[in-house]
This record gives sequence, structure tokens and C-alpha cells, in this order.
Amino acid sequence: MVKQERAQVTRDRLVEGAALAFYRLGYGMATTTAIVEEAGTTRGAMYFHFQSKEEIARAVIDKEHSLAMEAGLRIQALEKPAFETMVLLCIDLAKRLMTDPVVKAGIRLTTEITNFDPPLVAPYEEWLKTFAEIAQAAVREGDFRKDIDPVVFARFLIPAYTGIQLVSDTFTGREDLLPRIREMWTFVLPAVIPDDRIESARELLDRLIP
Amino acid sequence: MVKQERAQVTRDRLVEGAALAFYRLGYGMATTTAIVEEAGTTRGAMYFHFQSKEEIARAVIDKEHSLAMEAGLRIQALEKPAFETMVLLCIDLAKRLMTDPVVKAGIRLTTEITNFDPPLVAPYEEWLKTFAEIAQAAVREGDFRKDIDPVVFARFLIPAYTGIQLVSDTFTGREDLLPRIREMWTFVLPAVIPDDRIESARELLDRLIP
Repeated sequence: MVKQERAQVTRDRLVEGAALAFYRLGYGMATTTAIVEEAGTTRGAMYFHFQSKEEIARAVIDKEHSLAMEAGLRIQALEKPAFETMVLLCIDLAKRLMTDPVVKAGIRLTTEITNFDPPLVAPYEEWLKTFAEIAQAAVREGDFRKDIDPVVFARFLIPAYTGIQLVSDTFTGREDLLPRIREMWTFVLPAVIPDDRIESARELLDRLIP
Repeated sequence: MVKQERAQVTRDRLVEGAALAFYRLGYGMATTTAIVEEAGTTRGAMYFHFQSKEEIARAVIDKEHSLAMEAGLRIQALEKPAFETMVLLCIDLAKRLMTDPVVKAGIRLTTEITNFDPPLVAPYEEWLKTFAEIAQAAVREGDFRKDIDPVVFARFLIPAYTGIQLVSDTFTGREDLLPRIREMWTFVLPAVIPDDRIESARELLDRLIP
């Protein structure tokens, strides 16, 4: 490997090691020693890539967020109806929240407000924008009622999802996240779906989250 | 003051000082020195009352939770219809989340999962039980549809509220929490309220959160 590639491999290992340390210990309790141990590298390597614990935490969040946005684009590229796309995005994030250390840690770092001053709003803003756009498309496609304001809808759904994954994490380490997401959508459907499409929306939901 | 009363005053000041330190710095970053400084007491006084930072954090959560439960009982004692009682509980907690340092810190300590191992589920469990009982009464009173499962409803609403206050905290320090709660209920109403009562439910919501 050339020097630059080796540096990238080390940086990736540090981000993954930091994710494991942050998830296990929390941001405040995770020492740089714990991060270096999880990554299997040296302190020197860490300080070559990152100036501080805060900088490495931001790198974990950036990595998590770029993974989420890539997955989001892949799902949007399937060109399913907008309502189905929203449910698929919720499911996809849930699955990665159950399995991917960087995603698990990134979302926790984002939701633990005191980790950053000022608090990080960028990851939420991107989700809000994405969901408002797709909800707008659902209105155009007739799957959402005409009187739904896509921005208000996103401002409700993204925080609700945030809380649901957090409480699922607290109670079961997110093992019950998928049924909780189905329940969330079940409560939301009657507010957003026109009466004549609500049965097919319920069937879709049952098919996507059996 | 007799000795016992003085000790209680000191303990209360420590809990409030700890709340301020935890809210400002987060659990991981809040040192016992910061707690003692916020409380205006001595390390000796702190270690007389609490064995560890974890113990004082649990005392903050206990205090916050008993304040919330007292307020809950006061609101339930008004004997309003069950649906109105649920909205009033959401508003009351929101107002205390905006103003009371112990409530602000207690909820943050509860939602920051890595603070405690295993994570704290008791505060959620009490809210879930309370809301399931009141939702059951709303079904009896005909304000909720007969096919609503009160336990499933609570399992959706409490986490959704948790996330909404968290995102409101992140974006505005909870200044926009009340309009966000009105939006939450607006999205939930069509799923839970029978068609012939939905207009009066909307009017009630507009009256309670203008």
C-alpha cells in the first residue's frame, strides 16, 4: 500500500474504534486511551489524524450521516411511490441502528445534547429536508392528503422517530425497533392518507414490516 | 433549625446544584467539583449525603420524577375528561421542561442512555402505565375509538413525546416545545378520536395550546 492508503485505513480504524468506545462508554466517559485500544492503533496515530476527542466524535457522526444519506439515495433511486419510500427509509435506518457500530454510535452522539456546544442540528436538518421533499411528492401522487403541509409533517415525524429509536434502545437495545416503527406509522396513517387509500397503505405497511 | 432540617436543606441544594451542573456540562463532563460549586457547599457535605456522582444523578432523576408524578396526580384530580387530561399532562411537563432546572436535567439524564448501566427504564415505565390507564378511560368515555389498544397507544405516544422534547431542546432550548406538542396531537387525533368528536377535540387542542 502507498502511504496515503495506509493513512486512510488507520483513520477508518480510528473512527470505528471511537464508535465502539463512544457507544459502550458514552462520549463523556470514553477516554482517548479507550478509543486507541478499541482501534488497535497508537496515540501517535490518533493525534496524527485528530486534534481532540471532539474532532473524532464529529468524524463518527459525519461517517454515520454519510452512510445514512448514501442509503437514502439508493432507496430513493428505486423510484417507488413516495409513501413507500418513506417507510423504506425508516426501516433501512432501523436495521443499521441495530447492526452498524458507526450508525449506533453516531445517532447516540447526536441525541446526547450536552456532547457539543452548540448542539448539532445539521444531521436533523438533512433528514427534515429529505422527508419534507418526499412528503411533498406523496401529496402530488395522491397518497398523502392535499391539506398536509410536508414541512410540518417532517417536523413531527423525524423527532417522533428519534424518540422511538431512543426508547427502544433503552428498553431492548433496539431489538423491538421494527414493530415500534410499524406502530408509529399505524398511528400516523389516518392523519395523512386519504380514506380511499388507507387500506392499501395498511397492507403495504404489513408487507414491509411483517 | 435542628440538625436534621439543616441536613435536608443541604441535600436539596446539592440535588439542585447537581442538576445545574449536569444540564450545563452533561453527566460525563460534570465533575464533583462543578457540582459542589453549583451547590455552594463543600465536598465533605456532598460525600456525607452521596457516595458517588452516580448516586447524586439518581437523586436528581428521583426528584424530577416525583415532581412530575405529583403534578400528574394534581392534574388527574381535576377530573377533566381523559383526553383533556392527557393533553394537560403533556403541557404541564413541557412547561416544567422549559423552566425547572431539576426537570430539565432529570429528563436529559434519563434520555442519555450511556449514563447508567443498565439503562434506566423506571421513569418511562411509570409514564407508560399512567398514559395507558388514562387512554383506557378515554376509550370508556367515548373520546377514543373503541378499537384503540391503550397500551399500544402509550407505547407510541411516550417515545414520540420523548423525541419531540429532545429535538426541541436541540434546536431551540425547548422554546418551541408547545407548538410542537400541538402538532404531535394534530397528527395523532385522526387515529384515535371517533369522527363525530374530532372537531371538538381540535377545538380543545387550540384552546389549550393557543
